[in-house]
Amino acid sequence: MSGSKQLKLGAFMRPVSIHTGAWRYPGALPDANFNFPALKRFIQKLEQGKFDAFFMADHLAVLNMPINALKRSHTVTSFEPFTLLSALASVTEHIGLVATASTTYDQPYHIARRFASLDHISGGRAGWNIVTTANPDAALNFGLEEQIEHDERYVRAREFYEVVTGLWDSFADDAFVRDVESGIYFDPEKIHVLNHQGKHLSVRGPLNIARPVQGWPVIVQAGASEAGRQLAAATAEVVFASAGNLEMGKAFYADIKGRVRSPSGGRFAPSLGRDPDSIKILPGALVVVGETVAEARAKRVHLDSLVHYESGIASLNSALGYDVSHFDPDGYLPEIPPTNAGKTSRERVIAMAQRENLTIRQLAQRIGSYGGLAFVGTPQSIADEMEQWLIEEGSDGFNIMFPFLPEGLNDFVDKVIPELQRRGIFRQEYEGKTLRENLGLTRPANRFFQTATTSVR
Amino acid sequence: MSGSKQLKLGAFMRPVSIHTGAWRYPGALPDANFNFPALKRFIQKLEQGKFDAFFMADHLAVLNMPINALKRSHTVTSFEPFTLLSALASVTEHIGLVATASTTYDQPYHIARRFASLDHISGGRAGWNIVTTANPDAALNFGLEEQIEHDERYVRAREFYEVVTGLWDSFADDAFVRDVESGIYFDPEKIHVLNHQGKHLSVRGPLNIARPVQGWPVIVQAGASEAGRQLAAATAEVVFASAGNLEMGKAFYADIKGRVRSPSGGRFAPSLGRDPDSIKILPGALVVVGETVAEARAKRVHLDSLVHYESGIASLNSALGYDVSHFDPDGYLPEIPPTNAGKTSRERVIAMAQRENLTIRQLAQRIGSYGGLAFVGTPQSIADEMEQWLIEEGSDGFNIMFPFLPEGLNDFVDKVIPELQRRGIFRQEYEGKTLRENLGLTRPANRFFQTATTSVR
Ligand SMILES: Cc1cc2nc3c(=O)[nH]c(=O)nc-3n(C[C@H](O)[C@H](O)[C@H](O)COP(=O)(O)O)c2cc1C
Ligand SMILES: Cc1cc2nc3c(=O)[nH]c(=O)nc-3n(C[C@H](O)[C@H](O)[C@H](O)COP(=O)(O)O)c2cc1C
Repeated sequence: MSGSKQLKLGAFMRPVSIHTGAWRYPGALPDANFNFPALKRFIQKLEQGKFDAFFMADHLAVLNMPINALKRSHTVTSFEPFTLLSALASVTEHIGLVATASTTYDQPYHIARRFASLDHISGGRAGWNIVTTANPDAALNFGLEEQIEHDERYVRAREFYEVVTGLWDSFADDAFVRDVESGIYFDPEKIHVLNHQGKHLSVRGPLNIARPVQGWPVIVQAGASEAGRQLAAATAEVVFASAGNLEMGKAFYADIKGRVRSPSGGRFAPSLGRDPDSIKILPGALVVVGETVAEARAKRVHLDSLVHYESGIASLNSALGYDVSHFDPDGYLPEIPPTNAGKTSRERVIAMAQRENLTIRQLAQRIGSYGGLAFVGTPQSIADEMEQWLIEEGSDGFNIMFPFLPEGLNDFVDKVIPELQRRGIFRQEYEGKTLRENLGLTRPANRFFQTATTSVR
Repeated sequence: MSGSKQLKLGAFMRPVSIHTGAWRYPGALPDANFNFPALKRFIQKLEQGKFDAFFMADHLAVLNMPINALKRSHTVTSFEPFTLLSALASVTEHIGLVATASTTYDQPYHIARRFASLDHISGGRAGWNIVTTANPDAALNFGLEEQIEHDERYVRAREFYEVVTGLWDSFADDAFVRDVESGIYFDPEKIHVLNHQGKHLSVRGPLNIARPVQGWPVIVQAGASEAGRQLAAATAEVVFASAGNLEMGKAFYADIKGRVRSPSGGRFAPSLGRDPDSIKILPGALVVVGETVAEARAKRVHLDSLVHYESGIASLNSALGYDVSHFDPDGYLPEIPPTNAGKTSRERVIAMAQRENLTIRQLAQRIGSYGGLAFVGTPQSIADEMEQWLIEEGSDGFNIMFPFLPEGLNDFVDKVIPELQRRGIFRQEYEGKTLRENLGLTRPANRFFQTATTSVR
């Protein structure tokens, strides 16, 4: 199968796990969100497994949930992405480092500079997950009384991206001559002052750091709305999708690759059309590995059972658009009258309950922790599913979520990765030195200067 | 001399050196500002020398100088402090990590979070150098047409400090119970919502990260104006002074310690009075080491000679308040008519020229690179001077600048440090685990929660 299409794999990390019950799982590290040495072991294991990237989400407020749910959640405290990924950069050599940063609550000069710095420190392994920050509570932490409206956040995001990439291009790749003899440090013809004046931003430049090793750090995006998809099609090189099953995955994949191929001229992010291979679509997927499918399922049931009912029921009610808390939690979901909840979300939840034979309590625990795409089975069955997604154009790989750490991560690297490698759909060795090279993405030209793209720095 | 007052030593680092000519010095690394492995070697050497802290300055624009001077300067590109210091945190164990961050062009939620994160990652070694950013060009990179006025920047800085420290206190030190059995992650009585509404800032909170290991990272300040000194007296634990000679150092020391002891009730930063030992005053000092005093002086003359005349003459003219560029650069400074330049600055420059017998060219090269406090001599003569400053209350230590790297740094660690240790005025081993402990500073109580300060996390 060598020469066949290859999976790209990111690790979607929270120190303890993305699953809210995970800190209570046997063998888990409830203090991982304080424990840098644990994170260092995690990323080194991922690098041993040849993962493309370590991805760190980011939130600019404590998650907005009632205090009775919040007090049970390890999410209230976490490392900040730039400090964490930079610290991890110096203890790794190959793995990509993707940090989330918001275009709504930060300044392009800061963002451009930090990613450039991380890219220089890591030798070209930085990526930027562009988010517009949906949590309305974030606004209150940044001097606003209320959130900027959804679509306007994307208008700002598009402009923000232009400014950041423009600042990255402040210096030509070959600007720094460092001629000790003449005393010229850089060629003054090879510095560009951006002078951006736009609707949301006005930024003069130049940036006070050389062009990143990768030209630009890899651009990642995870929007799902029309505005979010337009931004992805115009700018992203990696898209973190949230696709509940293969059918949804294929539809999303076709939609995004289609937009990339023949631009829609959308109002949020007009684009010129690009090679569809220049964008990699990686849905998030929880992976639970067992010796048998039954063992893997039992692990997941155990994990979900560690979520407190109170923390789950509110999420379930909102997914159904109907209050089911007065029913017996240990009984099954009765017939529910039509409601205002998104029809798709409601039908998915009901189908999930039926398929896995879940009680109301179990369903609440599932929806209150993680109800999205999951591969639960043996290394073989998991590899089968991943291969199917790859072949049927459901994705170009996955953004893997581990149910509990370190066990879930170790299982993936020690058991699933070798199976993917055996099938020839995942690398045995890193292809290049930079994240861009490993993902098979080209190095962007500097928009202000023409130079051979090989002459870095 | 054991038991005597001890020097505290910071390293005031720029990757290449603070001296603009340093990249051309024999053996220097002109690419150090791209070269993370070099920075890693530098900090590990400083840690071997038991330095208190590695200090990283920060500027939010390319330094404002004419392009003909700028093109000769290595300062146009540098790592960003948070990314650099975080990357260095994971390759060191003891040394403090002091990052500069601006209260004028950033948001307290971001700053509080990043320093807390760095403090957790490094096990309690973070420090925050509070600056208000004097370079007017920075405003243009952050959407402003012009800079906020000097004193108003300090009013904002004081409020910013209150918000940041308030956010650090969002959780009690013992909030995180992580009780696997009951499923309670943190005690909901031990989270505090700041709800700050002030003149410049409005920030709700809570911060989404646990209280820093040190309670608060160490607060550093380097202001010199009345407003800057008031802020230092009210908030700082370390002050980076810029004192040209011992006499100026003593005056500054007495002024700041006096303000700390008996608060002035200043309008920028009203304060309640503190123990004068709770603030350490560390003037910046360039140190050039030789086998003989003559050799050290020759090194410095050589270093200064690497500064281009064009880059220096503008600085000299502005320090003198008089255009001397029409005189022969290789002649001596003639008598200069009284001018509008600050009288002290002008007199210092003239005295320096006379004392060291400098031509106009040499003087321009000196002023255009570094004209401040310098100890140039043998390990013994340097230790003599430092000891005198310590005994005569000129300072509590120094913020050392190396003339060129790695040589200047290695010389300091290998030759000057042992001499200071022999005299009993510098540690043989780190006293504690945190920067605060090494500096002899107490851990601040949480303003919202009473707990034993020993129970961290
Ligand atoms: C895998 C994945 C990771 C995400 N990570 C973050 C994040 O770290 N921070 C954030 O504010 N939003 C995050 N989001 C939310 C998206 O940026 C986006 O807001 C969301 O998918 C809704 O789409 P829309 O913004 O187009 O409405 C993530 C979404 C997905 C699917
Ligand atoms: C040792 C030292 C380091 C400094 N580092 C910075 C820095 O990194 N960034 C910055 O904007 N200003 C820096 N400054 C400038 C001071 O913050 C301050 O603006 C200056 O000393 C003038 O004082 P004033 O602000 O009270 O007028 C530094 C000053 C000194 C003495």
